[in-house]
Amino acid sequence: MLINILMLASQNQSIYLGLTEEKINDKGYGWVITQHILTVERLPIFGENIRVYTKAKSYNRYFCYRDFWIEDGNGTIITRMHSVFVLMDHKKRKIARLLPELVEPYGGEYTNKIERLANPLTESNAQYVSEKTYRVRFMDIDSNQHVNNVHYFDWMIDGLTEDFLLTHDLTEMNIKYKKEIHYGETVDSETSISENKLVTYHKISAENEESCYASCTWKSR
Amino acid sequence: MLINILMLASQNQSIYLGLTEEKINDKGYGWVITQHILTVERLPIFGENIRVYTKAKSYNRYFCYRDFWIEDGNGTIITRMHSVFVLMDHKKRKIARLLPELVEPYGGEYTNKIERLANPLTESNAQYVSEKTYRVRFMDIDSNQHVNNVHYFDWMIDGLTEDFLLTHDLTEMNIKYKKEIHYGETVDSETSISENKLVTYHKISAENEESCYASCTWKSR
Repeated sequence: MLINILMLASQNQSIYLGLTEEKINDKGYGWVITQHILTVERLPIFGENIRVYTKAKSYNRYFCYRDFWIEDGNGTIITRMHSVFVLMDHKKRKIARLLPELVEPYGGEYTNKIERLANPLTESNAQYVSEKTYRVRFMDIDSNQHVNNVHYFDWMIDGLTEDFLLTHDLTEMNIKYKKEIHYGETVDSETSISENKLVTYHKISAENEESCYASCTWKSR
Repeated sequence: MLINILMLASQNQSIYLGLTEEKINDKGYGWVITQHILTVERLPIFGENIRVYTKAKSYNRYFCYRDFWIEDGNGTIITRMHSVFVLMDHKKRKIARLLPELVEPYGGEYTNKIERLANPLTESNAQYVSEKTYRVRFMDIDSNQHVNNVHYFDWMIDGLTEDFLLTHDLTEMNIKYKKEIHYGETVDSETSISENKLVTYHKISAENEESCYASCTWKSR
């Protein structure tokens, strides 16, 4: 739900700029996420008033970098996210070169540099937690005709045990999307955990190809 | 998501009255839905400003009746829902007699009458659409330690075909909850459709017992 709300904030900016999803789709394109890096100081609590911010930071020929953050009532930042957006050509199902008219209005800075972002953590001697399968539902699909980036979180969280979820709080998450997943496909979600039990590793595959992987860092409650 | 938003409106009233979920849980009780009857003139559209209303209508010894409605910017009601709430004793896992201190503050009228609400439609010669199974996820569970009423909708909608969902709009839904479902249980969702293809019938079972059934009425787009 947190990621969903952050994503809606960037969608709101698009609407404000007249660059609606519909308009982008009509041109044959769609915005797609390739990575989120989330840092959680604390999650909003029930009934709390928060402000959700987003800002286009920079872009190069293929990648847009965007920041998100949430402030509590005192103006303290409690959650941050840095995300990478690309433009997908709907027909070719491939990443397209960014079109200036779809990017410049957001006010991010043009740069030649490709950000060198950390990959999700991986560890060779992680311990097995679970392996679960899911059938992709109609409601998981977005206007790009593939599983929305937000739905991967549900599968990943469901891989952890009830006991773990009730006794830990998320502090960091790094998730990288490699291959899209379509309606009706069967998804495999593998979960493992570090020896100190504070880092979890997640791998989502569909049709035997890795689609997405992530690491989450937790603290005991 | 629509039902979720309506439910949050009633939760907001509870918070406003100081009758938070936490407080009710501490007394050993929880509010549980036994029926929703939804009437949709039209669904809110993306980006539209709407107002969500709720009002405790009346209650008797065991049942609380509550109305929900959504108004668009012109004050036109576009969606209505009538719902039945009961108080569950968490220890006995049974419906409890309503406690005056938990009901009176909402301002509904006390009555001796039990409302005679229509049951969801059933039809003997409905045509088979699908039967799908689901594993209950941690995120499906609420503070009553059972599947939240809102999650049943996802299973029911997923029983319909993509083609049907893209060409029909919901106009009415009647859903009745009979037996709670717990974490880790396997759920079976059966879907069938009327001969004229405008009414769908849904049955959710867990551990071979019927948990919930519903009918939806649709119009072609």
